[in-house]
Amino acid sequence: MSEHEQILGILRAKNKNPIQLDPFRTALIVVDMQRYFTQPSFPFTEVFDKLSPGAAVGYLTRVRETVIPSIQRLLACFRATRSPIVITAVGSETREGNDFPCWLRAFDELGLATLGSRIWPPVDDPSWEIDEALKPQPRELVLNKLSAGTFTTTGLEQRLRHQNVESVVVTGVATDVCVSTTAREAADRGFKTVVVSDACTTLSAQLHQANLETLHVFGWVQTAEEVITLVRGALRSA
Amino acid sequence: MSEHEQILGILRAKNKNPIQLDPFRTALIVVDMQRYFTQPSFPFTEVFDKLSPGAAVGYLTRVRETVIPSIQRLLACFRATRSPIVITAVGSETREGNDFPCWLRAFDELGLATLGSRIWPPVDDPSWEIDEALKPQPRELVLNKLSAGTFTTTGLEQRLRHQNVESVVVTGVATDVCVSTTAREAADRGFKTVVVSDACTTLSAQLHQANLETLHVFGWVQTAEEVITLVRGALRSA
Amino acid sequence: MSEHEQILGILRAKNKNPIQLDPFRTALIVVDMQRYFTQPSFPFTEVFDKLSPGAAVGYLTRVRETVIPSIQRLLACFRATRSPIVITAVGSETREGNDFPCWLRAFDELGLATLGSRIWPPVDDPSWEIDEALKPQPRELVLNKLSAGTFTTTGLEQRLRHQNVESVVVTGVATDVCVSTTAREAADRGFKTVVVSDACTTLSAQLHQANLETLHVFGWVQTAEEVITLVRGALRSA
Amino acid sequence: MSEHEQILGILRAKNKNPIQLDPFRTALIVVDMQRYFTQPSFPFTEVFDKLSPGAAVGYLTRVRETVIPSIQRLLACFRATRSPIVITAVGSETREGNDFPCWLRAFDELGLATLGSRIWPPVDDPSWEIDEALKPQPRELVLNKLSAGTFTTTGLEQRLRHQNVESVVVTGVATDVCVSTTAREAADRGFKTVVVSDACTTLSAQLHQANLETLHVFGWVQTAEEVITLVRGALRSA
Repeated sequence: MSEHEQILGILRAKNKNPIQLDPFRTALIVVDMQRYFTQPSFPFTEVFDKLSPGAAVGYLTRVRETVIPSIQRLLACFRATRSPIVITAVGSETREGNDFPCWLRAFDELGLATLGSRIWPPVDDPSWEIDEALKPQPRELVLNKLSAGTFTTTGLEQRLRHQNVESVVVTGVATDVCVSTTAREAADRGFKTVVVSDACTTLSAQLHQANLETLHVFGWVQTAEEVITLVRGALRSA
Repeated sequence: MSEHEQILGILRAKNKNPIQLDPFRTALIVVDMQRYFTQPSFPFTEVFDKLSPGAAVGYLTRVRETVIPSIQRLLACFRATRSPIVITAVGSETREGNDFPCWLRAFDELGLATLGSRIWPPVDDPSWEIDEALKPQPRELVLNKLSAGTFTTTGLEQRLRHQNVESVVVTGVATDVCVSTTAREAADRGFKTVVVSDACTTLSAQLHQANLETLHVFGWVQTAEEVITLVRGALRSA
Repeated sequence: MSEHEQILGILRAKNKNPIQLDPFRTALIVVDMQRYFTQPSFPFTEVFDKLSPGAAVGYLTRVRETVIPSIQRLLACFRATRSPIVITAVGSETREGNDFPCWLRAFDELGLATLGSRIWPPVDDPSWEIDEALKPQPRELVLNKLSAGTFTTTGLEQRLRHQNVESVVVTGVATDVCVSTTAREAADRGFKTVVVSDACTTLSAQLHQANLETLHVFGWVQTAEEVITLVRGALRSA
Repeated sequence: MSEHEQILGILRAKNKNPIQLDPFRTALIVVDMQRYFTQPSFPFTEVFDKLSPGAAVGYLTRVRETVIPSIQRLLACFRATRSPIVITAVGSETREGNDFPCWLRAFDELGLATLGSRIWPPVDDPSWEIDEALKPQPRELVLNKLSAGTFTTTGLEQRLRHQNVESVVVTGVATDVCVSTTAREAADRGFKTVVVSDACTTLSAQLHQANLETLHVFGWVQTAEEVITLVRGALRSA
């Protein structure tokens, strides 16, 4: 058995510990499922396709066929219990991209050099909106962030604490960037953290998988079906 | 070319952008190079070896043969310019582990179940100390953290801002957990972020590599030699 | 001379140090100038009037006759240089007040006991809106907070850092609660901090004055006219 | 009745609400009771006395005769229940004061201009130590901060959360600066916050009183005796 297989074996064994999720103290976080991230014909995927034709095809397929349906099922489950739902987005609030940290500006510059347009939309652009298939309902918190993580540039920690949340279920795109950073931030702040393996993806399926392996360290990696079963089980026994 | 190779090609091309490092505004961060992380005979590696014999051998070799020598060279370089040096550690300040977030407590519980002892040392335990080979000098900041990231449970951001730091160079262990989280936190706070590929490692060399690929998104991945060349070049042209 | 006069003398002397304000690196912060805070007939002032008739009359007069005109002049000045403008508000994003910290909930409970209605509006209530006299323009950042301070429950620090802001000018209501906390937070994060004495007020003119005395510790206390003169002077010499 | 008396009446009435303090979920915070703040012959009080002879006499007397004895009683009470105790300090970790925000540097500059020495000690200076009368015991958390508030430049929030703390009792110096900022930060993060009126003071007794009036807004203002009675009462009924 290789070193890698040994380590994965240990991390996955750790993940077998049972999770206790109190549905009334668990928030669903849907990361950056905005139109420009989920649909073709926007600079985010265009720049990848321009740099390497076809590079974003698999990503967009996984978003459409797997991630969106999984998040829809999770939203239905969390809406049924009126549990907190947090929907994040990335966009420039000044409209000029000068409110981004330098690593996000580097992508805008890549877009300008490659396509002649910035990657990240202003917050009032139609492409900034959450994908129609996951339309937020009134009372669901929509937070614009200027970062990969959700906690750094929003007051999410306080919003969760004040509502007595103790666990978070993280979904969205992309697994290795905004999802992974948000999950790490949540775990480091003491929240029990579940990342939903079939409710997130990234441009390389292999990087998606490698990132999930590490996320076992910070909590649990589960399928949407497993999370829904946990929540429903907790409700029945409540 | 596979999807994965296409994406890696794009990320690595982005990394080719030249970095401007002002040595007087760049901090070296050395993450968790404590004895219990760098040497055998402490619970951290013991628990892995118990669960899967030999699992930590490669890790300890890489720490000793590559990571420590690289960090030594970087420390010498940053000490020569009196640039800020930040050395982090993980340990229980209450001595009982009840000040950790739940994901760190889960490892203590794994240690208790497997070895009969907790994984993370109290802050006054000899195994908490920084490895002798990297002994902090007076005026170098040693921060104990209760998290993977360095920014969440210390006031590092303010400490860097007040000293006018704009870039950080991140080293230490483990690549996929504390190093990656610290680099993400730094980038999200607007710091130019360089991760040093041969000054960090983790238990699986494959997860080390996969995590570095993603870290291209947040800034630059460079060797220790490349960073030292950059710093010296900036000094000469200053 | 009394102890109090001695101390005030020292604090005010410290305030005489000249301020350097770079208009392009200075943000104007307008705190909580929402209709329910600036106009009669909303629960915030009603509860004070119910508990002690006439208690809010002086406050509302000062807001109308002094604070709003001062902020209008500052907004015109900062708009002319396209400097960052941040406008804050308090309101419940869940609409039910369960997203507030306990000290804000205590006021909602006081309102319910006294008037039969909560004090703090939901974010989609007309009384949540910024006072018509200070209507935000597109591109001006409007941040809802769930706290007295502005930094704790928004990502304001990052938004300012990424735009290279180094100084803040703080105005609004109430001097001793949200204005004072925001100024303290800004100063503690390393921003040069100016509180504008005639662009803020609170329910007791005496508490307004006492709080300004302490705010000399954290930076400068200036009139709107003094700030405008500083900004225009800096522009001329630029 | 004046406006001021009306408003104070309302704030004090609010303070009459009963407090529920769970001793096992309440932390005692002792702010900056360091030798250079509590004893004569150090630059902090010397600079005030130099600028206005006798200005610090009343302060030092109140610290010695009231504040220290009150904190001693509170420490005994919290030690008896092994509740979390957090002891803060201010000092330069780089030893050169270049790690302070500009408002703290302004005081160092005032000290240099007035006395020829900086105000704030390096962290390894004897004057940085906690006053002998309040000597920390092992396991009590001593946090150095570079700010007025305790939360901004330490990871206090996470340290309290991970230990399941829900309430804080704030004491120390100075009421209007570090104590008030710490209490505001705690309340804004959702902690129930009690400021102990006879366990804190500042240079002007009048500013002490005015600041306490505002702190009613953020929670409760109680005497040390009242807090001790609350804690003991909660223990008996537990």
